[in-house]
Amino acid sequence: MSRFFDSKFMSLEAYVPGEQPRDKKYIKLNTNESPFPPCPAVLEAMNRSAAADLRLYSDPTSLEVKRAVADFYGVAPECVFVSNGSDEALNFLFMAFAENGAAYPDITYGFYQVFADLYGKKTAVVPLEEDFSIDPAKLKQCTENRTLFLANPNAPTGICLPPDVIESILLAGRDRLVVVDEAYIDFGGESVIPLTQKYDNLAVVQTFSKSRQLAGARLGFTIANPALIDGLEKIKYSTNPYNVNRLTQLCGVLAMQDRVYFDKTRAQIIENRAYTAAELKKRGFAMTDSRANFLFARSDRMSGRDYYDGLRERGVLVRYFDKTRIYDYVRITIGSRAEMDALIAATDDLLAEREA
Amino acid sequence: MSRFFDSKFMSLEAYVPGEQPRDKKYIKLNTNESPFPPCPAVLEAMNRSAAADLRLYSDPTSLEVKRAVADFYGVAPECVFVSNGSDEALNFLFMAFAENGAAYPDITYGFYQVFADLYGKKTAVVPLEEDFSIDPAKLKQCTENRTLFLANPNAPTGICLPPDVIESILLAGRDRLVVVDEAYIDFGGESVIPLTQKYDNLAVVQTFSKSRQLAGARLGFTIANPALIDGLEKIKYSTNPYNVNRLTQLCGVLAMQDRVYFDKTRAQIIENRAYTAAELKKRGFAMTDSRANFLFARSDRMSGRDYYDGLRERGVLVRYFDKTRIYDYVRITIGSRAEMDALIAATDDLLAEREA
Repeated sequence: MSRFFDSKFMSLEAYVPGEQPRDKKYIKLNTNESPFPPCPAVLEAMNRSAAADLRLYSDPTSLEVKRAVADFYGVAPECVFVSNGSDEALNFLFMAFAENGAAYPDITYGFYQVFADLYGKKTAVVPLEEDFSIDPAKLKQCTENRTLFLANPNAPTGICLPPDVIESILLAGRDRLVVVDEAYIDFGGESVIPLTQKYDNLAVVQTFSKSRQLAGARLGFTIANPALIDGLEKIKYSTNPYNVNRLTQLCGVLAMQDRVYFDKTRAQIIENRAYTAAELKKRGFAMTDSRANFLFARSDRMSGRDYYDGLRERGVLVRYFDKTRIYDYVRITIGSRAEMDALIAATDDLLAEREA
Repeated sequence: MSRFFDSKFMSLEAYVPGEQPRDKKYIKLNTNESPFPPCPAVLEAMNRSAAADLRLYSDPTSLEVKRAVADFYGVAPECVFVSNGSDEALNFLFMAFAENGAAYPDITYGFYQVFADLYGKKTAVVPLEEDFSIDPAKLKQCTENRTLFLANPNAPTGICLPPDVIESILLAGRDRLVVVDEAYIDFGGESVIPLTQKYDNLAVVQTFSKSRQLAGARLGFTIANPALIDGLEKIKYSTNPYNVNRLTQLCGVLAMQDRVYFDKTRAQIIENRAYTAAELKKRGFAMTDSRANFLFARSDRMSGRDYYDGLRERGVLVRYFDKTRIYDYVRITIGSRAEMDALIAATDDLLAEREA
């Protein structure tokens, strides 16, 4: 490491994104991308004319995106913050909205711990139950007003809390900020965005990466009361004011406006998830009740590592986390029906080989 | 402000980007954008097929961009860091490479002070000479190994130091990191990128926003020794791993590869700059010796504020900084020949009105 690197970051362990292998073509079920292209209007909009405008800076206020998001969710544009992916918003929330520290479940999006370490935050890690469900009482007890980061549905389990439970958490500690990370909410969960209009201790973070097919565009948003949004804007203008590029802003507006395509594609993912879960169950797999665009599955017949390796050898990539409590599991992104059939076939082949 | 906003950021003064007015169509000479579209290959590449791929995450390593930059500048890809605009790289350098504090001239890119405040850095502000030139001796004397941030050409003056002077600064303090911000280097300056191969206390930051016509794509890069690049990567993977979107990576590669267009367009800017400078001189304006895609100009016949206001009323936007030492000046982006003629005409009209 460079001798000029700040000593306080020397031991920092960065986040490790899902692998993007270059050695061969895989069926990629490891990073929760959508099997569908962006909506037709996005495909039309990426053209010479849009490219020519790249000579001009993007709108630092991302106003059109704010308006489209606000319109979709029935809130004021002042309640919306637009970011370079939802990770940027989470980064800002850890940086500037966690003065008393951060709290999160022991099994959740792995980036929370990285952010907490980066900013030297005191943390409270709340253990999930044996079945990976969340006991709301434990979240309520978690005190000292540490900002609570709650992925809902949770990652990588897909387990989802209903709005009334989240409201009870908000009520249990009005002086504690709760950040609900709804990256996967559109696949069967119910958003708590309406509660942002009632509670100033709630911020909801979402992304265009999953249910709106724009992972490669890098676009996320946060909905909260205008005062909280002001704080996020202040951090943005103090780090990278032109945080979202022109084409992404254009894509985001169009994707948010096409409600029919949004509903059609997420319904298809939900259907493919049910199909895949049923097929895996037939083969003896156990799964959490996932409301996300992935399944979290284990088999008594092999370890998570072996299942991951066996699928990889057969050209199917899933995500394995070498981590206490979940090393028996793999996380399988829900793709197209054909991709899920390929996963099932690879699973059958692997099981047959192991039992031969 | 939200009651959950960290108290240490309450008094932070964010950066103010150049205005992007919506009230009417201006000749926009206020944010140093290029009057030329991106190179032809970029215009071709933004199409349905590229848009369809947006469903997939971008390469978090930005490997193809690294290779294109490395190839252009004759360094190894390991010496290149790719960022969401050069501001992101500067942000990371202030955050993680300024443990002893930061130093910069009193008149320079205004964001340096914002970054320093954001991270609570001790700062040393080095005064420029009366004519806005930099006395290298003062930079060398600036001690305590504070990381030196040096815009070269400087903003908003355009004054440029030659590589041998920068090398002498590097040699004067081998334990002090020097960050040379070469956002405007391609319009008549000489880059110190070759010195990164010899000195581990040098990092060079550049952008695709000016000489490569991609301001709206948000793309920047840093060249330094691999150990320093590793540190930047560590911060990126701890804040926002997928920091650059897919289409931007594609545009960046193509823009870096088209050397003919790059040379043609920057030569045209240099020619238009000389033309505009000569015309303004005829009208009694004084200017610094700018090697950037802007002029920094003042007139004895009116204040900087009056010149800015008068141009704005006439549909021409330039940048005015209401700041000690430079409030007599405006910064004028060099656009097309037609845009510069419009600026001259507006200037004549304004001068005639004032003398009527």
